[in-house]
Amino acid sequence: MTTLQALADLVQGTVMGDPALSIHGVSTIHDGKDGTITFVAHKKYHQYISSTPASAIIVSDGDLLDGKNGIVVDSPQVAIASILNHFSPKYAVNNGIHETAIIHPDSNIGQHVSIGPYSIIEAGVEIGDHVSVGANNVIESGAKIGHHSTLSHHIHLYHQSQIGEGCIIHSGVVIGGDGYGFVTQNDTHIKLPQIGNVIIGNNVEIGANCTIDRGTIGDTTIGDYCKFDNGVQIAHNVSIGRGCLLTAHVTIAGSTKVGEFCIFGGQAGAIDHVTIGDRAIFACYTAVMKDLPGGKVYSGAPAREISEKNRRDAVYLEVKQLKKRLKQLEEKVLS
Amino acid sequence: MTTLQALADLVQGTVMGDPALSIHGVSTIHDGKDGTITFVAHKKYHQYISSTPASAIIVSDGDLLDGKNGIVVDSPQVAIASILNHFSPKYAVNNGIHETAIIHPDSNIGQHVSIGPYSIIEAGVEIGDHVSVGANNVIESGAKIGHHSTLSHHIHLYHQSQIGEGCIIHSGVVIGGDGYGFVTQNDTHIKLPQIGNVIIGNNVEIGANCTIDRGTIGDTTIGDYCKFDNGVQIAHNVSIGRGCLLTAHVTIAGSTKVGEFCIFGGQAGAIDHVTIGDRAIFACYTAVMKDLPGGKVYSGAPAREISEKNRRDAVYLEVKQLKKRLKQLEEKVLS
Amino acid sequence: MTTLQALADLVQGTVMGDPALSIHGVSTIHDGKDGTITFVAHKKYHQYISSTPASAIIVSDGDLLDGKNGIVVDSPQVAIASILNHFSPKYAVNNGIHETAIIHPDSNIGQHVSIGPYSIIEAGVEIGDHVSVGANNVIESGAKIGHHSTLSHHIHLYHQSQIGEGCIIHSGVVIGGDGYGFVTQNDTHIKLPQIGNVIIGNNVEIGANCTIDRGTIGDTTIGDYCKFDNGVQIAHNVSIGRGCLLTAHVTIAGSTKVGEFCIFGGQAGAIDHVTIGDRAIFACYTAVMKDLPGGKVYSGAPAREISEKNRRDAVYLEVKQLKKRLKQLEEKVLS
Repeated sequence: MTTLQALADLVQGTVMGDPALSIHGVSTIHDGKDGTITFVAHKKYHQYISSTPASAIIVSDGDLLDGKNGIVVDSPQVAIASILNHFSPKYAVNNGIHETAIIHPDSNIGQHVSIGPYSIIEAGVEIGDHVSVGANNVIESGAKIGHHSTLSHHIHLYHQSQIGEGCIIHSGVVIGGDGYGFVTQNDTHIKLPQIGNVIIGNNVEIGANCTIDRGTIGDTTIGDYCKFDNGVQIAHNVSIGRGCLLTAHVTIAGSTKVGEFCIFGGQAGAIDHVTIGDRAIFACYTAVMKDLPGGKVYSGAPAREISEKNRRDAVYLEVKQLKKRLKQLEEKVLS
Repeated sequence: MTTLQALADLVQGTVMGDPALSIHGVSTIHDGKDGTITFVAHKKYHQYISSTPASAIIVSDGDLLDGKNGIVVDSPQVAIASILNHFSPKYAVNNGIHETAIIHPDSNIGQHVSIGPYSIIEAGVEIGDHVSVGANNVIESGAKIGHHSTLSHHIHLYHQSQIGEGCIIHSGVVIGGDGYGFVTQNDTHIKLPQIGNVIIGNNVEIGANCTIDRGTIGDTTIGDYCKFDNGVQIAHNVSIGRGCLLTAHVTIAGSTKVGEFCIFGGQAGAIDHVTIGDRAIFACYTAVMKDLPGGKVYSGAPAREISEKNRRDAVYLEVKQLKKRLKQLEEKVLS
Repeated sequence: MTTLQALADLVQGTVMGDPALSIHGVSTIHDGKDGTITFVAHKKYHQYISSTPASAIIVSDGDLLDGKNGIVVDSPQVAIASILNHFSPKYAVNNGIHETAIIHPDSNIGQHVSIGPYSIIEAGVEIGDHVSVGANNVIESGAKIGHHSTLSHHIHLYHQSQIGEGCIIHSGVVIGGDGYGFVTQNDTHIKLPQIGNVIIGNNVEIGANCTIDRGTIGDTTIGDYCKFDNGVQIAHNVSIGRGCLLTAHVTIAGSTKVGEFCIFGGQAGAIDHVTIGDRAIFACYTAVMKDLPGGKVYSGAPAREISEKNRRDAVYLEVKQLKKRLKQLEEKVLS
């Protein structure tokens, strides 16, 4: 329970209405609940402002409130992030190192670290300060985890893998497995040993059950501030630039270079050995099959600029027209 | 080993031939084995009836047997489900709670519950009667599992997640992980805390390595009798209606509402914030990119009704024809 | 540290230049490092030979070296596999059976086996000689693992599953889960018990988080020398022939038969009950929707031979031309 004024202070906003109003949670504007605060970030939700039972609304323009209680801020979305954080129940407790965790004496564990039951920390592992490692994790020899990072459960970091600071790794993630490399000779596939590494930057979030392979020679690298949804697959020697957003089940094949701040929709992907420029955006199910410049929106398989994709989709209607016109012409000429 | 009569009683069918015939297992009609019972559910398998070495056949029409031993029932498929169950080896044994399982004293464990080795049950967890939890599971604080549900191994239920009664959760499933929610400001992605929940109904089956995220505000919900194949991904605030069938690697993006009894083929999916009507069917690799009414069959990316999809695919042949006709016309006119 | 001569002996090649040259690792030709050996397998990398700082180069033609130190072999790729193996750090140590592993007395464990912490081996399991089982694995009753196979961590072999000799199974893999089989009657989905098995051949590699379901009646089978990338899904009663290469997120639906030496690009897949011939190649995102003969290259959804796929993609340009010609004709005829 807190007051509207206290929340306004938290988000550096201005109270409209009653600063002493009690707020005990957050709701959405189209499913607003009495006693909660909600927010409006897009025009299409303006229609709900007058009727929502929510007790207060975060807006970017005070006039929208029309007399209702609220907070005015520059970005309602950024403000709601802080307020959600304020009301977020805190389940993760630092319980220190569980007695069933198996910690190799030659590992290097920082201050204020928690390690859950049945986790295994091998020789040469380095874990920074304020790191939380969940249950049933296997952190293999020589792996490094930076300060303030959080690993959930059932995670496997293969040997030497590196995770930066402030990262969040969800459950079931496998980092540093062998890249998919074989040489085929006389119908026999000979395994290419994968002796490179995986290096993940700072403030990266990796969704549940993602897989990130180590490089063959040289490293697989994930830039700072990348955010991966669940089930993303990154092959060996891939490089993902800073701040990329990869949504669910995206698949990037070997040695491909993705620029900075790219966005991949669900199930999108890229073949191996292609280069993608900065700030390229790929619709869901887009398949990148060649080098593509950044700063554009792509769709389809193979990936094409969305305007061309749409023109191609329109061929169906154009052919209908062509048939009609051709028939008229035939009737004229051949009759 | 059992008799044909005993099996007929089990499936409420009528014996044709020798009721004392011994049956020791099940085989398929095209790979029938002596001493087993098989079944015919589709016309295309009628051809095998006369030659199969199987000792008895379940049919919906006694005339099909042509003198062979068998059982007549309304639905051979429903009957074979019971008979497979009869012959299914029982591997899961209720061994009670393993001594290495870590059970928080403030959890609430029902009657006849088994919990496997190295599993962790946190504070406030509620587990119903006759529940089986496998090995290496992590059931976080406040999670609930209904009566008669079965969890395999390496499963993670994040805090507060709810699973109904009679559910089957296969290995490697992650339920209640953070939804993929970020606000981007000045090229920095700010995490939106995900404080909603996941609520799964009764008699739901979730395949291996599926991921189901918790809601941002409000809940992700999966209706009763939904059946998910392996590797399905459900994003935050999605709602899946009763009885939906989602096959392997299906991906449903955030806040999308799927009606009742929909069917998604392999690798199909839907973008965020769309609404799909009841009993819609999606071919494999279909990408739903807008609201779609129920009761129809869709295919392609973007998803279109299958008849339109087929007409679009036929444009290739139509253009061939148009070229021919245009050429003839040109010769006539221009020569 | 080793000499060029020693490496040449290892790969049965011929030294060009200084046999006593010291080599301490491997690098790529376009990112060559002093003191390392590199290789050239494709023409497009010839340009780097003169300028690479690498100290020696493996080539198939000595003239390419132009006076530089190197080794001449038939296949530089096969040679580099051996040399990578030579320089590969050895992290996996046979530590025997960890005291926390729970081994059923009625299991059968071979010689020189290692089993990691918190792994569970149930009754009737058979493990061959020189097998390595990692941490947190669950090997259910009656499962078999052949000699010299390696299982990483968090792996679940359901009851009776069989893995051949010399296999490598990466983390998070689930083998032998229930196939996706239901009979629907009056909107109720009745589970078809899955009483078949999974049988995996010799020298198979299975990537992280793959899922391979057991058969309903009869078995799911994976041939010798198959290599699966991460996140591959194999449904019940599928049969994959010898030597197939399935890259990331490939999905093969129920009862489909894949021939020998087929290659599936990323996210490609096949619907249920189709038959694919030997040595078929599928581009990424290809969806096989009917029986297809082997020996060809396919692309698209539905899968078509790549030449037809390209002609179909070209329709867009053809229609542009048709419009132009039709317009000219109309002007002639109708004016």
